[in-house]
Amino acid sequence: MIPDFEVTILGNTSSIPVYGRNPTAQVVRYDQHLLLIDCGEGTQMQLKKFKVKSSKIEHIFISHLHGDHYLGLVGLLSSYNLNGRTKPLTIYGPQGLDDIITTQFRWSNTRLGYPLVFRQTNPEAEELLFENQKFKVFSFPMKHRLPTTGFRVEEKPRPKSLIKEKLLLLSLPIEGIKKLRFGEDYRDAEGNLHRVSELAHPEPPLRSYAFCSDTIYDPSLVSYIQGASLLYHESTFMDDQLERAKLTFHTTAREAAQIAKAARVERLLLGHFSSRYPDLSGILAEAKAAFENSILSQQGETYSIS
Amino acid sequence: MIPDFEVTILGNTSSIPVYGRNPTAQVVRYDQHLLLIDCGEGTQMQLKKFKVKSSKIEHIFISHLHGDHYLGLVGLLSSYNLNGRTKPLTIYGPQGLDDIITTQFRWSNTRLGYPLVFRQTNPEAEELLFENQKFKVFSFPMKHRLPTTGFRVEEKPRPKSLIKEKLLLLSLPIEGIKKLRFGEDYRDAEGNLHRVSELAHPEPPLRSYAFCSDTIYDPSLVSYIQGASLLYHESTFMDDQLERAKLTFHTTAREAAQIAKAARVERLLLGHFSSRYPDLSGILAEAKAAFENSILSQQGETYSIS
Repeated sequence: MIPDFEVTILGNTSSIPVYGRNPTAQVVRYDQHLLLIDCGEGTQMQLKKFKVKSSKIEHIFISHLHGDHYLGLVGLLSSYNLNGRTKPLTIYGPQGLDDIITTQFRWSNTRLGYPLVFRQTNPEAEELLFENQKFKVFSFPMKHRLPTTGFRVEEKPRPKSLIKEKLLLLSLPIEGIKKLRFGEDYRDAEGNLHRVSELAHPEPPLRSYAFCSDTIYDPSLVSYIQGASLLYHESTFMDDQLERAKLTFHTTAREAAQIAKAARVERLLLGHFSSRYPDLSGILAEAKAAFENSILSQQGETYSIS
Repeated sequence: MIPDFEVTILGNTSSIPVYGRNPTAQVVRYDQHLLLIDCGEGTQMQLKKFKVKSSKIEHIFISHLHGDHYLGLVGLLSSYNLNGRTKPLTIYGPQGLDDIITTQFRWSNTRLGYPLVFRQTNPEAEELLFENQKFKVFSFPMKHRLPTTGFRVEEKPRPKSLIKEKLLLLSLPIEGIKKLRFGEDYRDAEGNLHRVSELAHPEPPLRSYAFCSDTIYDPSLVSYIQGASLLYHESTFMDDQLERAKLTFHTTAREAAQIAKAARVERLLLGHFSSRYPDLSGILAEAKAAFENSILSQQGETYSIS
């Protein structure tokens, strides 16, 4: 069975929270694993509101140090502590985030009852941050007013499901079956080549999710997010605010759609909306004109990554 | 006309936000002046939700450095900046709060467009923090796990409203009328004493509001909050958790009511409720048994201070 892979949006506003939109935070779920990407103010309340089992989160990824992307972190870490958490937690984020956290815990005299590991991200080059048997998480550089990274969650190849009827006719040795299950062709002692493509059930392509917020319009992102099943890309402004977007290192909806198109992603999820847009239909229309498979992120909604 | 004097509750949970209860924050309004007391995570959203004109806030008072009392501060200060605030803002709080704020603004490369003044409170003795023509704000020491102060907002005597009919019969000089208006008796050139008590309309007694959260049960607080029109006192627990209250330097509802009774306040507003109480009726009943004029604070509700 193919594991669930999805993202739940907890907040989709840009810096100023208005119209009930909360600052950036989202939970990526792969099977039973929960990853938190960004943690704006109020994230712990949003996790409760949308009934996310936040105690299961073991990895938190912070894109950059503008407040709307991390100000909920110390509250969440404190509540974990008060709730008696013992499970380790790793935070991946830019230089300075550990200083911000430890400064606050020093003044509040807080000693965590669980191991908290901080791993500094690299805003200059792509890096593998984490992997387990099922998926990998990468960071990659983005261009914003502060050191910033995007994140990509990539499914790893699963063992192949082999076609039993065909295998029975071949009576291959264990090592041959293992090779095939791990996706490699196998040549037997008599020199016959047994191909995965013939002996394994076809499988859907590997899925991936990419997160790009905040960033100026940057075609060099395309190489990091190529073919993503779902791309969350900031679309702070519409094209009528193009100059403002450039000035503040943000992206317009049209530009986000152009990135999605160039990277041949399957779906584009728009977010990080400026407070100047009470109504987001213009953002959506502008993105769809350049990339039809565009959707507006909604708080509390879960989007399948497939 | 007597100016409005009231408090709006933005959050009334203790450390863990549950059941839709937010961390501590409240707005005291005296006439057109707004004061913010404590600023837990999500305060800027609560200010919007309850339609408080937050741009009018010029003074913020932080009781102590547990996250549930200040984590919304940097977000609020940032949003003021993004909204183009130029009006000065003064923050009164414990040692360390300026370090916490400047550490975060340093990493986010934030330069405020408005003057931000930090004034350190004294957790050892009562102090006058601020006064204008209409009211004074004091801090006073409380006993908690960190250096903590309570706050008291005290109305100042208003000019007396003199009884015109009586004055007309006396034809007093200007300096005599001034003295009477400022509440002093006046002796004229012939040696006659003109008494305020006879020449001025009677006025309601001066009003005051006291904020006590967080604190262990502490009878020494009584001297600082004596006769308050309204006392907000934490009642984190009920009496069945008395040992836990002592251990964590918090107060039970019965104890809060005893403080209210000993201080002869007019009304007791209960708050800072532990996440162990989804239903607060037990808290209210326990307080009322010791002090009838007890009420449960409700988020978004405004309570008259009179």
